[in-house]
Amino acid sequence: MPENSIGHRLVLTSFGESHGETIGAVVDGCPAGLEVNEKDIQKMLDYRKPGTSLITTQRKEGDKVEIISGVFRGFTTGAPITMIIWNSDKKSRDYENLKTKLRPGHSDYPAMVKYNHFNDYRGGGRFSGRLTATHVMGGAIARKLLKVTLGIETNSYTKQIGKIEMKKEFDKIMTKSIYKNDVRCPDDNTAKNMRASILSARKKGDSLGGIIESITTNVPIGLGEPIFSSLESDLSKAIFSIPSVKGIEFGSGFEGSKLFGSENNDLYTIKRGKIITKTNNSGGILGGISNGMPITIRIAFKPASSISQKQSTVDIKTKKITNLQVQGRHDPCVVPRAPPVVDSLVALTLADHALLAGQIKPVL
Amino acid sequence: MPENSIGHRLVLTSFGESHGETIGAVVDGCPAGLEVNEKDIQKMLDYRKPGTSLITTQRKEGDKVEIISGVFRGFTTGAPITMIIWNSDKKSRDYENLKTKLRPGHSDYPAMVKYNHFNDYRGGGRFSGRLTATHVMGGAIARKLLKVTLGIETNSYTKQIGKIEMKKEFDKIMTKSIYKNDVRCPDDNTAKNMRASILSARKKGDSLGGIIESITTNVPIGLGEPIFSSLESDLSKAIFSIPSVKGIEFGSGFEGSKLFGSENNDLYTIKRGKIITKTNNSGGILGGISNGMPITIRIAFKPASSISQKQSTVDIKTKKITNLQVQGRHDPCVVPRAPPVVDSLVALTLADHALLAGQIKPVL
Amino acid sequence: MPENSIGHRLVLTSFGESHGETIGAVVDGCPAGLEVNEKDIQKMLDYRKPGTSLITTQRKEGDKVEIISGVFRGFTTGAPITMIIWNSDKKSRDYENLKTKLRPGHSDYPAMVKYNHFNDYRGGGRFSGRLTATHVMGGAIARKLLKVTLGIETNSYTKQIGKIEMKKEFDKIMTKSIYKNDVRCPDDNTAKNMRASILSARKKGDSLGGIIESITTNVPIGLGEPIFSSLESDLSKAIFSIPSVKGIEFGSGFEGSKLFGSENNDLYTIKRGKIITKTNNSGGILGGISNGMPITIRIAFKPASSISQKQSTVDIKTKKITNLQVQGRHDPCVVPRAPPVVDSLVALTLADHALLAGQIKPVL
Amino acid sequence: MPENSIGHRLVLTSFGESHGETIGAVVDGCPAGLEVNEKDIQKMLDYRKPGTSLITTQRKEGDKVEIISGVFRGFTTGAPITMIIWNSDKKSRDYENLKTKLRPGHSDYPAMVKYNHFNDYRGGGRFSGRLTATHVMGGAIARKLLKVTLGIETNSYTKQIGKIEMKKEFDKIMTKSIYKNDVRCPDDNTAKNMRASILSARKKGDSLGGIIESITTNVPIGLGEPIFSSLESDLSKAIFSIPSVKGIEFGSGFEGSKLFGSENNDLYTIKRGKIITKTNNSGGILGGISNGMPITIRIAFKPASSISQKQSTVDIKTKKITNLQVQGRHDPCVVPRAPPVVDSLVALTLADHALLAGQIKPVL
Repeated sequence: MPENSIGHRLVLTSFGESHGETIGAVVDGCPAGLEVNEKDIQKMLDYRKPGTSLITTQRKEGDKVEIISGVFRGFTTGAPITMIIWNSDKKSRDYENLKTKLRPGHSDYPAMVKYNHFNDYRGGGRFSGRLTATHVMGGAIARKLLKVTLGIETNSYTKQIGKIEMKKEFDKIMTKSIYKNDVRCPDDNTAKNMRASILSARKKGDSLGGIIESITTNVPIGLGEPIFSSLESDLSKAIFSIPSVKGIEFGSGFEGSKLFGSENNDLYTIKRGKIITKTNNSGGILGGISNGMPITIRIAFKPASSISQKQSTVDIKTKKITNLQVQGRHDPCVVPRAPPVVDSLVALTLADHALLAGQIKPVL
Repeated sequence: MPENSIGHRLVLTSFGESHGETIGAVVDGCPAGLEVNEKDIQKMLDYRKPGTSLITTQRKEGDKVEIISGVFRGFTTGAPITMIIWNSDKKSRDYENLKTKLRPGHSDYPAMVKYNHFNDYRGGGRFSGRLTATHVMGGAIARKLLKVTLGIETNSYTKQIGKIEMKKEFDKIMTKSIYKNDVRCPDDNTAKNMRASILSARKKGDSLGGIIESITTNVPIGLGEPIFSSLESDLSKAIFSIPSVKGIEFGSGFEGSKLFGSENNDLYTIKRGKIITKTNNSGGILGGISNGMPITIRIAFKPASSISQKQSTVDIKTKKITNLQVQGRHDPCVVPRAPPVVDSLVALTLADHALLAGQIKPVL
Repeated sequence: MPENSIGHRLVLTSFGESHGETIGAVVDGCPAGLEVNEKDIQKMLDYRKPGTSLITTQRKEGDKVEIISGVFRGFTTGAPITMIIWNSDKKSRDYENLKTKLRPGHSDYPAMVKYNHFNDYRGGGRFSGRLTATHVMGGAIARKLLKVTLGIETNSYTKQIGKIEMKKEFDKIMTKSIYKNDVRCPDDNTAKNMRASILSARKKGDSLGGIIESITTNVPIGLGEPIFSSLESDLSKAIFSIPSVKGIEFGSGFEGSKLFGSENNDLYTIKRGKIITKTNNSGGILGGISNGMPITIRIAFKPASSISQKQSTVDIKTKKITNLQVQGRHDPCVVPRAPPVVDSLVALTLADHALLAGQIKPVL
Repeated sequence: MPENSIGHRLVLTSFGESHGETIGAVVDGCPAGLEVNEKDIQKMLDYRKPGTSLITTQRKEGDKVEIISGVFRGFTTGAPITMIIWNSDKKSRDYENLKTKLRPGHSDYPAMVKYNHFNDYRGGGRFSGRLTATHVMGGAIARKLLKVTLGIETNSYTKQIGKIEMKKEFDKIMTKSIYKNDVRCPDDNTAKNMRASILSARKKGDSLGGIIESITTNVPIGLGEPIFSSLESDLSKAIFSIPSVKGIEFGSGFEGSKLFGSENNDLYTIKRGKIITKTNNSGGILGGISNGMPITIRIAFKPASSISQKQSTVDIKTKKITNLQVQGRHDPCVVPRAPPVVDSLVALTLADHALLAGQIKPVL
């Protein structure tokens, strides 16, 4: 398996760099006969796009996707689907002084050592959050596939920014409200507070992190393979491909580790002739396999590493301690741009497993 | 990639069932020329072995490993290394009534549906925690390889059982004390409280979960591939292969998501001519790549699903609600048996990446 | 993908050495619900077994297979199926003088260099033809799967030994006669000549090669993926895993390269309402995809490298030219033992592709 | 592994269609620090380019390659290298009547059935020989890598067209003469005859096939993994990805199968202190591993399927027998365009194995 690819049957390959010519995605293994067009993909990309709000970076990218292979007369052909975005608003000279001064929290230093300085360091190069647009390109196709074939829907939203948490439980009605505000939190009051805290951090040249919660409904029973290809294994592998993610939990997660078995076990019952569980502490996954309940995931994002405050660091050329103020245009908080990315990776993983389990056929 | 395998260059394939003839592991891609013998592997297996303490299941398994291929005159040959354990203390009839009554928290129900009742349900079959012995077989080899070639060491210990947490920070001296008590917590006082809480839960027919912390030292800079094969992606994929794991975090993890960037960023400095960071909120991983600091992971285990208290459930045959008391011999808390398993999966992942990055050669 | 494994969805992993404890196979990805028992596998193994005829090696191996995982109450469970054979009739001391004298035609020299002398050289170790028994174990399951689900049948036979070729075209009736004689050639007269030529070569301390032809019928249209996973790509990859194979051709093959397009093109026609081709120069594969006609393959085996005639060689220790007479028990011609091996690899490849194409479901 | 990719460590992914927007290649796993530019790749592409001679198709494609990721300031970065060619000279309407009339020898019929008519049929779509340009893009990088790091060189030439064969043995001096004529046969007299035979076939609306021989020198000992990833397995898998290839042999191949072991074995000797073999019937590969002798491969190409003669076929819509004259611009013989394609696939496979064997490091 190439290292820049993910998936068993539905495989996403990501290519490109933040300040290179292009970023792109190849999706291999998508069934023939799925109706796909650039609008489907563009809509998801626009949700992730920078430069549209004060709380995101001011880099203005059109992020206009082009499908350059694999779709014929509006339908997938079974051949690899390639999508690209040409990079436009690059200001690479902002990064010239980063060649020697190590940015705290970034991949600069390990990447330099790993690649013996051959890596493209401009804007973080291959390690930039910008590459998550390639996840979204692939994810848009997977989402469509899941929707059309199995009715599966994934909704991710901002649950927490810094210390401000949405306390209300997420429910079905909220799915319509996620994209109504620019923090992507369906509770308006919480959203306002989150927004204020991001703007305040930005003013101080500081940054914030937060938590995304993702809920997937209509998942059939039986997705996931035992042991090394459990849903939790494959979902977490996919989600940790997002820069800044440092934690993940399913169902009751870390809190559940403090409970008794008698409290945490989800008891089975029957509702309208269907076997379900009364609670969902398992997050819809038992033994690595979907049990038909919603899949619930919480994902921790660290605060963005790029801050404009002065930081102490090392100059790798002089091997001396020095100060650094990170230039360039950065997100004071990446969390609000993350929901479509999380949605995408969840969809890619579930579509992959639905193909593995024979629940989606290779030709529609 | 077969679904029951994990790894890019160093690949572990797991086979066997809890109550079948055998459980086993094939390790492919281990460099030729590594001195390996059954004692190295047995030592790790014994740390995981059940039946040795009141706080674990009373199933008594010798768990005696046999190397049946890939080692010649005490050294690895470059060929696949196969190791097996013959199952001995099986009491499969305990599981006959489970054929129809769904055990809450277990994979029984989704597995039945997924495999159309062809799966081996005895003792959880393929989904049993017993299979983690195959991780340990592979891990013992990976640990040896990392130790001999790069000096890398992984130490995992019980940080929390239920609500009882070890508050002291783990340090180097503690590595010697992990296996001195049967809860695998290096702080004696905390260990005593943990032990008491497990025994108390057991008495009530209940179970507990907890948290394992894993610290890996001497990691060279540059392990991990960008995006889909980041260290976090591959470590989490490996670790979620352990049944009962429901959460994972690296470095400051979920707590870090509440901090400001100025608090969470690890500032670079120079110590004895070496570039290091003053703090380690990143858990030794930046941009998915090791930065030379210790890799720190915390892993949440749910309370064991098998409890002897009466639980309400559904009988899949009659499709009626019924009561269930889980028979069989079970762990009241699996956490104390998990440290060698976590050690193993961390070692397998790092050895795999060291091979990928060319830091370990294919022939020693 | 581990290097000792083959397949996309149905993956065979081979382990073991000629003179080690055991040889074995793990089959991952076999659908749950296939009736399988050791007799099915043993029958195929017996066709390959040495020591049963004067024209094969006199090493007497029971080659008794044991299924040690993945089958429960007579049916596959969806878990990896592991099969092993314990090696019994080993005479390893025959190989002690081979540690330094290079056997012409064998892997000894490149293997020594590759593995820096850590490889198990006894009886060829990992490179021995004995390992093809692991292909047969996996192949027996694949054959059964293809038979039960799609009615596909593979028949391979000895078409040529040295310069003696069966001129008659293979037909359906002959499928019953392949195993009636010990050269596995369904034409009795040719078989007698072949047998005589092998015995004559043996007497002179020499060896012979030959050609196996393989015909597979009832193949549905649509197996094979374009470009890198074409049927020809994957069949040839599988078949070159047999030691001694040095050539392969499909349909009209090398002879076809001398024809005009107007001669070699297979014209379409309709027979009993079904679209077929009048000829089968394509060998049942167009654009890498099965077209519903029989898949025909011819495979060239070099003469066995182990001959008891004195040969000039180099002693790697002294770096001097020396003479060598290969000791040990060897096949004067491996071709008669190859048909079940070829059948196995063809079946594994087709079953793998039938799963990929959704023509076999993951649970029966 | 995605089905449209090939390789273990150096992975080529191919995308695009003959009459789509673009064809392209992603190369993942190429070491960082290799000097690469578009000229290196263009040179190889030009050797394969159509429309430059009377003996090839008159489709005029610029085949101008653009590197759109993975190269920074002239050197590879370790990130995936993406290369594309925009298709220009498409005449898709030539293919409209092919939607129903099955072209003999082409993939049309099985592809239609496999993809339920969703495949892009224009110009053969994904199955077109045009896609071999993606092999050449990847191969140009692999060739450079092998040359710079290990001095390995691959030279492929036209050995036979129809019944006209170059009888002289290929030698080192000839490597300079391969591209001096448009049939790519280094012997001028044979080349003239070959050319005449192609033009004559073309005049008759017919086509020819032939044989390519490929010789690779300076191969180090030890490339290739035992059993399923033998050099022969992986080379043949790669080479059968070329449309029209129906046979392959290594060393003495099919002819060798008629020899005695005493004739076919290559005896070891010492030359200038180096262990070599006196003959090279093994084609440089023993036990699937390179033995340091030149790797010699012969590849059979069927005559091109597209001929302008009238052929009988079936109309899939009417299910009736009908006549067909293939329109469009076609090669009367694809063999002269194949040498750079074969060179590319051999180079990709050897570079992949050199990385696997640790003979090329992941960062130069």
